[in-house]
Amino acid sequence: MSNDVTPAPRLPTLEDVALAAGVSRATVSRVINNTRNVDPALHTTVWEAVAATGYVPNKAARSLVTRRAGAVALVISEGESRTADDPFMGRFLGDPFFGRVVWGTLSVLSPAGLHLPLKLAGNDESRTQLIGELRQGHFDGALVISLHPQDTFPRQLTEANVPSVLFGRPAEPLPISYVDIDHAVAARLAADALMQRGCRSIATISGSLDMPAGHDRLTAFRSAMAQRGYAYIPSIEGNYTQESGERAMERLLVEHPEVDGLFVANDLMAQGALMVLRDHGKRVPGDVAVVGFDDSSAALASRPPLTTVRQPVEEMAAEMARLLLAQIDAPEHRTTSVIFEPTLVARQSA
Amino acid sequence: MSNDVTPAPRLPTLEDVALAAGVSRATVSRVINNTRNVDPALHTTVWEAVAATGYVPNKAARSLVTRRAGAVALVISEGESRTADDPFMGRFLGDPFFGRVVWGTLSVLSPAGLHLPLKLAGNDESRTQLIGELRQGHFDGALVISLHPQDTFPRQLTEANVPSVLFGRPAEPLPISYVDIDHAVAARLAADALMQRGCRSIATISGSLDMPAGHDRLTAFRSAMAQRGYAYIPSIEGNYTQESGERAMERLLVEHPEVDGLFVANDLMAQGALMVLRDHGKRVPGDVAVVGFDDSSAALASRPPLTTVRQPVEEMAAEMARLLLAQIDAPEHRTTSVIFEPTLVARQSA
Repeated sequence: MSNDVTPAPRLPTLEDVALAAGVSRATVSRVINNTRNVDPALHTTVWEAVAATGYVPNKAARSLVTRRAGAVALVISEGESRTADDPFMGRFLGDPFFGRVVWGTLSVLSPAGLHLPLKLAGNDESRTQLIGELRQGHFDGALVISLHPQDTFPRQLTEANVPSVLFGRPAEPLPISYVDIDHAVAARLAADALMQRGCRSIATISGSLDMPAGHDRLTAFRSAMAQRGYAYIPSIEGNYTQESGERAMERLLVEHPEVDGLFVANDLMAQGALMVLRDHGKRVPGDVAVVGFDDSSAALASRPPLTTVRQPVEEMAAEMARLLLAQIDAPEHRTTSVIFEPTLVARQSA
Repeated sequence: MSNDVTPAPRLPTLEDVALAAGVSRATVSRVINNTRNVDPALHTTVWEAVAATGYVPNKAARSLVTRRAGAVALVISEGESRTADDPFMGRFLGDPFFGRVVWGTLSVLSPAGLHLPLKLAGNDESRTQLIGELRQGHFDGALVISLHPQDTFPRQLTEANVPSVLFGRPAEPLPISYVDIDHAVAARLAADALMQRGCRSIATISGSLDMPAGHDRLTAFRSAMAQRGYAYIPSIEGNYTQESGERAMERLLVEHPEVDGLFVANDLMAQGALMVLRDHGKRVPGDVAVVGFDDSSAALASRPPLTTVRQPVEEMAAEMARLLLAQIDAPEHRTTSVIFEPTLVARQSA
């Protein structure tokens, strides 16, 4: 707002930075442009020199040269039209699972010099806009967690032909890359843990059955138990919250009071089930043995500490990021799936 | 890899999009450039036309025009040099608090057309690089959660003079904007709830005392109790995890078995304290009344459900984003603090 006219100071240049850092212009340029495979020690030196000289390169000009956004979007997408006030997505963000995904993806993307903008795609408008932004190159690709079986976003991604990887297989068959857990192995681990405890009346609390993860986990558990001679496994559906685990356990105790072994599709629901068992004076694992799924912070916080099938979420998220980087580098990629082996973490509940 | 030479198809233009959308070129340009105050209905129309025509504007050219990155960084910063393998930051990401901050900031930034890249600044190198990126205009500003009293990042931000807002007051006095909770009001609410229960022997489990939030909450609670005639309030320090709440409660029961009222500096620690009280056969609130802090998902998951001081994290995060937008629009801003009023959510533990 000032009308004073003062001579503009000479702006620091790339050469000034190179001189201050004691490296070549090319090295400064590579660091500033986030070219991969630059010695991390040089990164520090160059950025300190950038700060010391006050050099302000033109980011937009940089982008014209590299033709890369330098960012991939982490997208949480739901199928139905939902508003920003909808508690469902907020609930998902409050689950420890979300932070584990962020942690795993950043462990790969930060060293690669890529940013990770977060995008919530809760309705058709936001999904359409996001596809537009991806096609325009606002982002180099998308890492996607899809929360609903009718979610159109995975299909939109394949139609737009932009680099993208899902966490968990898509609800409908689509030519899109994903990481997932081996649900058959997970089910066998849970079944064996309960059998070894001598459980005779085994039931399960499942996740939301309209999503692949919930459906696959239940089907695999029933199949593993059938192979062990158990023709019928009662099941009650929850929605992954602790409260839904409490409600399911109350119902199970009414409908199947003989239950002495339980597989629960995530640790938060298992934590709720343990509380209800305790309220009813049932000893765990003496009266009822309980096996959870995830190995999240809720497993350690449970009383007793939860025996659980470990899903290596951080490693899966890191691999999801690596798959996406490979796609960005080689757009004519083949879609890939990487399936992780779960392990059993034995604590005290089974 | 093909050597076929085929004539390049004519690339769709801005005019094609305007024609398909039935709007002017200027409107298309405003939507694509994320200019604020565009009718949301037009957004959908234009992005659908972008998708239908296959128009791919040059993002870098766009950035040269707007001179805006269109993104603000959400930074989690720690003071000490930590590696990516350090569990501390991962633990923070797994806390429901993190998701509430993301949810609140996106509620303001998404409608404004701004991206929210996540940045973990766990060591000096990453902080220096981030300051460099901010100065370069990779981001228009920073929303910062600082996890350590020796964290240099808030000072670096003020020295670099880039738009930035903290969640919680800085550990050292600095000319930087922040949002915070009124700890004096919070302490009075907790004190009154315990007094009304008739508690005579009141203790507290505090958060990490080297951080402002932990220190302020304890000091304010002691001061509120002193005003009510209680000269001495025993305190045991936790670190905001449920496990640390369990350990602190065990110690309190040994050192102060007469305790009949308890203020705990967050809900996760209170959840742990409730478990230990139950293990020791103490009825809540009959034998010991417990008041938590946050009103996170842990408050509802506790047994009994937790009476707690509500910290409106989503609203605070949204305000943090609004303060940052105001700074970006008017760089010659005055630093501002916005202090939120907590409320008491009465459930069953007090």
